Amino acid sequence: MFVSPQSMHFPDRLPLQSGASLRDYSLSYETYGRLNAERSNAVLICHALNASHHVAGVYAGQKDSEGWWDNMIGPGKALDTERFFVIGVNNLGSCFGSTGPMHINPDTGRIYGADFPVMTVEDWVNSQARLLDALGITTLAAVMGGSLGGMQALSWTLQYPSRVSHAVVVASAPNLTAENIAFNEVARRAIVTDPDFHGGHFYQHGVVPKRGLRIARMIGHITYLSDDVMNEKFGRQLREGIELQYSTQEVEFQIESYLRHQGDKFAEYFDANTYLLITRALDYFDPARSYGADLSQALARATCKFLLVSFTTDWRFAPKRSRELVKALLDNRRDVSYAEIDAPHGHDAFLLDDPRYLGVVGAYFDTVAQEVTSASVGVSTS
Amino acid sequence: MFVSPQSMHFPDRLPLQSGASLRDYSLSYETYGRLNAERSNAVLICHALNASHHVAGVYAGQKDSEGWWDNMIGPGKALDTERFFVIGVNNLGSCFGSTGPMHINPDTGRIYGADFPVMTVEDWVNSQARLLDALGITTLAAVMGGSLGGMQALSWTLQYPSRVSHAVVVASAPNLTAENIAFNEVARRAIVTDPDFHGGHFYQHGVVPKRGLRIARMIGHITYLSDDVMNEKFGRQLREGIELQYSTQEVEFQIESYLRHQGDKFAEYFDANTYLLITRALDYFDPARSYGADLSQALARATCKFLLVSFTTDWRFAPKRSRELVKALLDNRRDVSYAEIDAPHGHDAFLLDDPRYLGVVGAYFDTVAQEVTSASVGVSTS
Repeated sequence: MFVSPQSMHFPDRLPLQSGASLRDYSLSYETYGRLNAERSNAVLICHALNASHHVAGVYAGQKDSEGWWDNMIGPGKALDTERFFVIGVNNLGSCFGSTGPMHINPDTGRIYGADFPVMTVEDWVNSQARLLDALGITTLAAVMGGSLGGMQALSWTLQYPSRVSHAVVVASAPNLTAENIAFNEVARRAIVTDPDFHGGHFYQHGVVPKRGLRIARMIGHITYLSDDVMNEKFGRQLREGIELQYSTQEVEFQIESYLRHQGDKFAEYFDANTYLLITRALDYFDPARSYGADLSQALARATCKFLLVSFTTDWRFAPKRSRELVKALLDNRRDVSYAEIDAPHGHDAFLLDDPRYLGVVGAYFDTVAQEVTSASVGVSTS
Repeated sequence: MFVSPQSMHFPDRLPLQSGASLRDYSLSYETYGRLNAERSNAVLICHALNASHHVAGVYAGQKDSEGWWDNMIGPGKALDTERFFVIGVNNLGSCFGSTGPMHINPDTGRIYGADFPVMTVEDWVNSQARLLDALGITTLAAVMGGSLGGMQALSWTLQYPSRVSHAVVVASAPNLTAENIAFNEVARRAIVTDPDFHGGHFYQHGVVPKRGLRIARMIGHITYLSDDVMNEKFGRQLREGIELQYSTQEVEFQIESYLRHQGDKFAEYFDANTYLLITRALDYFDPARSYGADLSQALARATCKFLLVSFTTDWRFAPKRSRELVKALLDNRRDVSYAEIDAPHGHDAFLLDDPRYLGVVGAYFDTVAQEVTSASVGVSTS
């Protein structure tokens, strides 16, 4: 499936939760499949930290350019683009196309940098709703996301309950735990205290706070994997062909080599201000905050049907966090399906091939497709 | 109990596992209680990362100067200094008294810095054995430690089996997992890539790599606590009296404030090279390495009796790691007692007051004391 990125410009101010606003911004997005005549088969995909609007398919002439959820979405796949019109959108504040800290602030004529306004999950959802308006889509057959993307999917059901028929929330949580926030904070401190960060205005100094980005990514990778899969993949293996060197600075173990490599790669392409913004959006998300931490009350607004999926070895967004959501939805007598997949890969599992996981999502979208079709038939015969 | 630190100088070279050696070094130590006439009631305490020879008691005239295991060790306590002669010793490479990277290298006349040789658990145990020789102690009634200290206690039973009657190994492991090494590596990279590290020779530049030390300590603290206790202590509480500020750099949550405070404190007193050395000693420890990863075979050398203790919520040195040790010792038909304490505090639990934990250790030392006494009677009547 060959795909092309698109961009939509929005001149009007988007008011943000912080009180700030954003104007003259653009959203990068991609679409796969065809919108049906009733405009009733659209599925919005929300992305997590290190992802973008390029959700599925490949770019013509670019090797290894598969979208980040290409194993899930495409012709004949769990989310079948022959039946659904799938939209991937890049979040504001990202560094992959939509307006972000690396772009020019129209109010000052200078690069936003650290002045890019802090975004929340709710702000992203509002911006996504405007994109749907522009695309002429009133109601989503489904909204779907994993991790931070799952938080956006959940927030859609609370902010625009009448515009969502189904929500698929994978490896997510109703909010971050103290430990989650703690890991985010360490990563942010590593970036902010890197002398090359320059208070977030490093662009005009011609440098990038790579040291901080490397540390942030290394911490991230540890939390994405399970202890088990790390032991299986790396264990205590020494670097290939090398005896113990008795050095505090050289690589001794395979796991060190892997983490350094991941950190180096990430620091080459990811924006430091984007990292701060996205981890903060994670920290802030907490729909129960305005309901005295009563999640059941907070989720009362949601009216759609839900599929929730979690993975047993995910210690970043553990199954018990998904179960909190299930309980709160059931307290409101909502229609909820829940699958807890016994996968060894930790949080990363939501991006990987697991036949049980893809099977559950595929079966769920079969029922969504049937609803879409029978509603279409209803429309055409009425 | 008022105590005073002491120091012992060792002119002879100590050969190290790396092939390097150390000469003209000193060990800081403290002793509590009295060595009996038979010299049979000595208990050696080995310390973990951020600790020292100051294990118990207080320094006269110094407020809040309790030793790090003062809740465990003292007159009438679980390890009763009225019955035992307890020795605390500071490890080589530390920054709390014994010879370390901040001291002068007698071979060059300059501060060691990054040239201080890499130490292993085995090297520390050898240096501790020399201290015991100097104190005229041939056999230990017990050797005891938690975490990295537990690794030293275990290594004592393998390196000097005839010199140890009992080993008390708390919240420890037969080696680090890939995840443990990964966290150590991130902390080390944060220190080494701090521009103020200067390749480990920052002393002569009049600076300290505080940014790196702060990050290292923040990571450490996350791994010392359990998810549960973090949620209980901090949860998602905002900084006192402050509304959400929508800032990526200001403190928003209590947990951020706590971690920054811990990081700042640590960076004021801990030595960066020591941090690298100690985490590397943790990484390297693996008595089964030379036995094809067969822990049972590796522990066959141990002849003493063991008490192992682990804590249910400790995810740094999880109970299953202690159970590996129990199994390997039982495979060798060794005398092992094992207690898995249902404590909420994570790895930190080994330093905290828990009546069940202190009760188990106290009961174990009662039996050790009885053995010491009956042996003494045996000696005097023979």
